[in-house]
Amino acid sequence: MTTPCPDTKGYFLTLSCPNRPGIVAAISQTLFDAGANITEAQQFDDTGSGSFFMRIMFDVVKGGRTEADLRGIVDGVAREFGMDYRLHCQSYRPKVMILVSKFDHCLVDLLYRWRIGELPIDPVGIIANHPEDTYRDVDFYGIPFHYLPVTKDTKAQQEARILELVGESHTDLVVLARYMQILSNEMAAALSGRCINIHHSFLPGFKGARPYHQAWNRGVKLIGATAHYVTRDLDEGPIIEQDVERISHADSPEDLIRKGRDIERRVLSRAVRYHIEMRTILNGNKTIVFTS
Amino acid sequence: MTTPCPDTKGYFLTLSCPNRPGIVAAISQTLFDAGANITEAQQFDDTGSGSFFMRIMFDVVKGGRTEADLRGIVDGVAREFGMDYRLHCQSYRPKVMILVSKFDHCLVDLLYRWRIGELPIDPVGIIANHPEDTYRDVDFYGIPFHYLPVTKDTKAQQEARILELVGESHTDLVVLARYMQILSNEMAAALSGRCINIHHSFLPGFKGARPYHQAWNRGVKLIGATAHYVTRDLDEGPIIEQDVERISHADSPEDLIRKGRDIERRVLSRAVRYHIEMRTILNGNKTIVFTS
Amino acid sequence: MTTPCPDTKGYFLTLSCPNRPGIVAAISQTLFDAGANITEAQQFDDTGSGSFFMRIMFDVVKGGRTEADLRGIVDGVAREFGMDYRLHCQSYRPKVMILVSKFDHCLVDLLYRWRIGELPIDPVGIIANHPEDTYRDVDFYGIPFHYLPVTKDTKAQQEARILELVGESHTDLVVLARYMQILSNEMAAALSGRCINIHHSFLPGFKGARPYHQAWNRGVKLIGATAHYVTRDLDEGPIIEQDVERISHADSPEDLIRKGRDIERRVLSRAVRYHIEMRTILNGNKTIVFTS
Amino acid sequence: MTTPCPDTKGYFLTLSCPNRPGIVAAISQTLFDAGANITEAQQFDDTGSGSFFMRIMFDVVKGGRTEADLRGIVDGVAREFGMDYRLHCQSYRPKVMILVSKFDHCLVDLLYRWRIGELPIDPVGIIANHPEDTYRDVDFYGIPFHYLPVTKDTKAQQEARILELVGESHTDLVVLARYMQILSNEMAAALSGRCINIHHSFLPGFKGARPYHQAWNRGVKLIGATAHYVTRDLDEGPIIEQDVERISHADSPEDLIRKGRDIERRVLSRAVRYHIEMRTILNGNKTIVFTS
Repeated sequence: MTTPCPDTKGYFLTLSCPNRPGIVAAISQTLFDAGANITEAQQFDDTGSGSFFMRIMFDVVKGGRTEADLRGIVDGVAREFGMDYRLHCQSYRPKVMILVSKFDHCLVDLLYRWRIGELPIDPVGIIANHPEDTYRDVDFYGIPFHYLPVTKDTKAQQEARILELVGESHTDLVVLARYMQILSNEMAAALSGRCINIHHSFLPGFKGARPYHQAWNRGVKLIGATAHYVTRDLDEGPIIEQDVERISHADSPEDLIRKGRDIERRVLSRAVRYHIEMRTILNGNKTIVFTS
Repeated sequence: MTTPCPDTKGYFLTLSCPNRPGIVAAISQTLFDAGANITEAQQFDDTGSGSFFMRIMFDVVKGGRTEADLRGIVDGVAREFGMDYRLHCQSYRPKVMILVSKFDHCLVDLLYRWRIGELPIDPVGIIANHPEDTYRDVDFYGIPFHYLPVTKDTKAQQEARILELVGESHTDLVVLARYMQILSNEMAAALSGRCINIHHSFLPGFKGARPYHQAWNRGVKLIGATAHYVTRDLDEGPIIEQDVERISHADSPEDLIRKGRDIERRVLSRAVRYHIEMRTILNGNKTIVFTS
Repeated sequence: MTTPCPDTKGYFLTLSCPNRPGIVAAISQTLFDAGANITEAQQFDDTGSGSFFMRIMFDVVKGGRTEADLRGIVDGVAREFGMDYRLHCQSYRPKVMILVSKFDHCLVDLLYRWRIGELPIDPVGIIANHPEDTYRDVDFYGIPFHYLPVTKDTKAQQEARILELVGESHTDLVVLARYMQILSNEMAAALSGRCINIHHSFLPGFKGARPYHQAWNRGVKLIGATAHYVTRDLDEGPIIEQDVERISHADSPEDLIRKGRDIERRVLSRAVRYHIEMRTILNGNKTIVFTS
Repeated sequence: MTTPCPDTKGYFLTLSCPNRPGIVAAISQTLFDAGANITEAQQFDDTGSGSFFMRIMFDVVKGGRTEADLRGIVDGVAREFGMDYRLHCQSYRPKVMILVSKFDHCLVDLLYRWRIGELPIDPVGIIANHPEDTYRDVDFYGIPFHYLPVTKDTKAQQEARILELVGESHTDLVVLARYMQILSNEMAAALSGRCINIHHSFLPGFKGARPYHQAWNRGVKLIGATAHYVTRDLDEGPIIEQDVERISHADSPEDLIRKGRDIERRVLSRAVRYHIEMRTILNGNKTIVFTS
């Protein structure tokens, strides 16, 4: 998320570094000296790895600072403490590319939340491996649609084209909204930290094909869904959000799929919200999520 | 649960048979003719396997029928439709043997629910593989305690002794209340359909040792517990009940274990309640649970 | 729901009557004699009021019976036991009229579930007290739209027009999908038992205007929504379904409203599903809901 | 919580003050200069009231500082920003007085959590308005028991005696563990901010007597419990924690009471944990709860 937004006064800042005394004092003092007022802050000490993570929201109350100025100021502290950090204005709407296969419930849900102003994103494109007519009942509101069919033989080219579209559109976040294709390792690496998948059924219990049927065969009493960052192992990326619903022996696999749609769309939309509000920081194979 | 209770008028009846028209009519008419009034009934058609399952609660409103009389009457319908059935008076308190290892939270919880009259059971014994002094802070209320240590070499004898105690006490239900020993296949078979285990952490996600640590390592956002009937594969028996709680990145493995204790005790006590109220019927590797 | 559907073999039957021995036997035998096979049945004894309630799903396996034939057959038992009953073919799609005000999330959700075949209804109209342009981003899929503005002075006429539309369209169910007008007593009476409202925020805690702001002012840690049948007292009708989500001190009233939208749409859609699957029976100021 | 604990290095600090730029910088720098390392910090800006709230956990990594030293150091910042603050060592076990009436499930639950080391409290007494024999099945583990019966006429004296016991024992927190007496305004004022009540049934829906019966009469589909700080209006104090469980039409008032016991004990124990970990700060008629 690199586009500056000069007219804003509110910023998100996330950072991580090896833990040692004085980090909070240094960053708070630096921001204060720069005319900033911290409005929200959350931190986490991973005592196991010795890493420190922090998310700060602040307002620039003294005039005249640009985002570039602020980066310059934070750079000093970052060097001192060996920090990775991300800083962005709160008013920026991340550019989101949505990938979809046959089932459109997550796509429709995300577009609805965007349309009523609930999800402050800028949808720059919809990519599907099914023809546009599949979605004839879905209003795309003028968002560019790209039909990119894929077979085993054309997978490399198709993924190259997706990355091209992602690049051209300056996409900040790719959302796999029930996109039922496994990304290649290269593709997963290229989108590392900026691609969210919704895994239907409840990770880590039921991987592989037809997870709701697996859950039904196992006779479980709860089903769920998991949203996670995409890594090489499609079903094993850092988890962002999960939720469940109760089922009974009387529920058919079709009932599970129906209940699953509700869980999937709310879990995915929460994960997207956490990402765009910069509430998430990757920590190895886990995700730190600073919820409200 | 075979002890008759001559002074009662209320009965539980569960049955299963191949599905075909007329089952409900036949059983309802038979019970009506026997002077019984159905007060609650639930059924399930497993269209996949073609099996029919039913649970009936009824009161005998005409006098003079004993449990044996009623069995004689139901036998006729059962033969006609090829039914397996279980019939028992509602006032019977199943004899329960509780097995426990080091952690006592499930044991204490079950005893509490029994003590205040919430769980209508008759606890006939507590078997532990740790010495009695381990539970010096637990009031057993006079329930016989059996210390049966177990090593790899003595496992066969220890299990034989357990089965002996189960037999002598006419135990109806064995509850593994965080009993951290894997039962032998023979033992599991001997207790088939009358032994409930609580699996800490969330099946089927995390099997094996230290499941909460596994869940923590995986960075999940929900943890849970599963109560199931014991089969040869300890972690794979027919599921009776599950529940979850939300966790965050800030929860340590110890926090997960703490939250897990709350989930475990409520899931296990619900499963025991479902069993003793004859709400459960085994259906292959699944459990039908007729909840209210 | 009175339109016959001659080509079906599956039926819903719900009934209520004063409790006495023999009801289940009589109805099961009658259906069996009529060539029907009961596939699902649930019952409830209200021991307080002495009333008996039952829901039956059955297939007619012998040919040639029409819905009228079946009614004729059930009439006999109904007279004997003083039953109120409703019988309808399972393939019938109830005609649904949706009323909406400014906020469209429940409307859009219901239309989506209908469009993908999840909710087997026949939407016969949308009535709004805001002009059609308010919903310019909503695809009505050709469903007739009626703009019926309302003021204090025109309320009687507006309601008369609604009832006219309901009558002309043979509407089976009216859904108040965040329709922010209080119905007159006459209107509520006219739609008794066939009008479902979604009450935002958590009944019975917060009645009146701006319930999410009330909940926020009170500092609650859970918010919820309630779907209920409409009666004279708008906020006090028989409850069909409720759900909640967790909130924190950091959630603003706007966050509550956002989370509330998710709860409202899933609670309302479940209530509509329960109604059209004839899982609900009114019992005084309560609703019996035979969930799966 | 005023007893110093000289051998510890970990401290809790909570503070509140009018919001203005520089608070976080000042407090972080001050603690850093004092040789402290912040291990956890959470804050909340109440933009409505213009108040700022913060909770900090820190370790004193440079030797030699006592709790009194630290207070002296924090006093400076507190004066500058007009802060109210509380500072205490993490190893301190708050002295807790538990009040109980007839039902002992919350009492037994708290004692269990304390006994296994889950709840780091120091129970200094149990006060009951029923005779000791009422709790003959409860192990008090030597905690002093006080039978203080109360009638309308003796209420003033009884409360005076309670306050005396609270004073003599240096009680930090009074827990009303299903203590079914309404405190006088004077008593509530005397225990302001250090007395937690568990309200059975779901506030704010059902106040007054027999709330589960009220909920049952209303036909609700969820019941819950609320833990809150005690104020003059017993049912209206600042809410700390709430939870719910699903019920159905088939649940009797007794079933609601049974399910309610489970909710009450987990909600109350969470609220006590939040209080003793200094996660709660009063904000008018609300409670800020910095959960993990």
